[in-house]
Amino acid sequence: MKPDALLSRIRVVLCRPSHPGNIGAAARAMKTMGLHDLCLVRPQRFPDSEASTRATGAVDVLEKALVVDSLAQALEACVFSLALSARQRDLGPRLGTPRTGVEALLRYATHGPVALVFGNESSGLANEEIMQCQATVTIPTNPQFSSLNLGAAVQLLCYECRMSAFAGAAPLPAAGVTPLDGVPATHAEIEGLYSHLTQIMQDTGFYNPQQPGRLLAKLRRLFGRAALEREEINILRGILSATQQPTRHGRQAD
Amino acid sequence: MKPDALLSRIRVVLCRPSHPGNIGAAARAMKTMGLHDLCLVRPQRFPDSEASTRATGAVDVLEKALVVDSLAQALEACVFSLALSARQRDLGPRLGTPRTGVEALLRYATHGPVALVFGNESSGLANEEIMQCQATVTIPTNPQFSSLNLGAAVQLLCYECRMSAFAGAAPLPAAGVTPLDGVPATHAEIEGLYSHLTQIMQDTGFYNPQQPGRLLAKLRRLFGRAALEREEINILRGILSATQQPTRHGRQAD
Repeated sequence: MKPDALLSRIRVVLCRPSHPGNIGAAARAMKTMGLHDLCLVRPQRFPDSEASTRATGAVDVLEKALVVDSLAQALEACVFSLALSARQRDLGPRLGTPRTGVEALLRYATHGPVALVFGNESSGLANEEIMQCQATVTIPTNPQFSSLNLGAAVQLLCYECRMSAFAGAAPLPAAGVTPLDGVPATHAEIEGLYSHLTQIMQDTGFYNPQQPGRLLAKLRRLFGRAALEREEINILRGILSATQQPTRHGRQAD
Repeated sequence: MKPDALLSRIRVVLCRPSHPGNIGAAARAMKTMGLHDLCLVRPQRFPDSEASTRATGAVDVLEKALVVDSLAQALEACVFSLALSARQRDLGPRLGTPRTGVEALLRYATHGPVALVFGNESSGLANEEIMQCQATVTIPTNPQFSSLNLGAAVQLLCYECRMSAFAGAAPLPAAGVTPLDGVPATHAEIEGLYSHLTQIMQDTGFYNPQQPGRLLAKLRRLFGRAALEREEINILRGILSATQQPTRHGRQAD
């Protein structure tokens, strides 16, 4: 199944959200990651202009959003549902990480619709809601401050879905330009640079072949990391050659 | 180096942010992931009550935030900086994914302070800002809608930092309760259940050993996946036994 088709099978369920701004932020977060199916369980205020404002270009997700009375209705057709929870519940499934939870979610998505389930901003999901889901994940947060915004939580989970759907290799946005990417230099060209450089360092007294130390090795290490291109070698050698001209000081080459 | 110490070396730099709400959201996003060093390059409005509102419990990050005039000042002490960009620049480094970019960032963080650099909400980073950074990443988004909120982008990058600092195994929040986790059943106990079940299915005519089909295999598959606990076996066998009592219909067992 194609990654985009898989992503389209993921429903995001927000249970009893209090703030319409968060509904809008969730819609925007979903759409940036290629998810479109939003379901709201008893939202406090919806539709609402604040939701539309925060959704920016994702108002289509809001307009198509399904509003239902219970989590059971939201999950009716789903073959797997993953709940987000800040804490372990004694009867709930053991908490996992978003990355592992989302992997399972996507395996099930090949069989049918699946759901990501989020609770209310302050109270989270009720135990009976958690118990309707097959797995529970928590976002690893700073133990001193774990107050993740609902929109941010939806963003993280949807991002993991996209990363996982594309097997960690979600295509990057089409480049408007091609990055400068020259012809790599050959071994001989690179060695030519080193010889040239060594000659000049010797001529200038900067380098004494009788006491070589680690200077050459350090230069090789530096340029080696850079993975030089042919044109760059030409530039560098041009500079070196220029320093060798008797006219190098005081006036420009013509 | 400890993960928390590594995370404390990551500076988040917001270049010319327009909306104070996004500065607050960034502070909150940072703190949830254990980052605390925020630096603002020529913010349009800061300090601002909207920033504090959106930061909720992360106002301390805002209060300690450094405000500077240029990206160069922000990066002065940094040994590596990673820029976020929505598009490839012709002279900039080739775009990578947040996950790989953050891995490099954390390797450098063992040597000194490092930075995550974000641009303005509408215009992004200028080319000359990108050129001051060692690497550039882009968040893989839906090509039809890549409009990621600034706070959401900061959240995703900080999350990847935390995941990477803890080597993909960031500790989950301390469980308030221990999940119910009973004694696993032994092989003999499980086989006892299957025998009991088979006997009853045979007694009731549900199962005909002359025409076994795949019924038993399917039951084993189901219970196998469940990884039964001893207490659960006792419950299931209790139910089975109850169905075998002559008094099972019409009145309760005493």
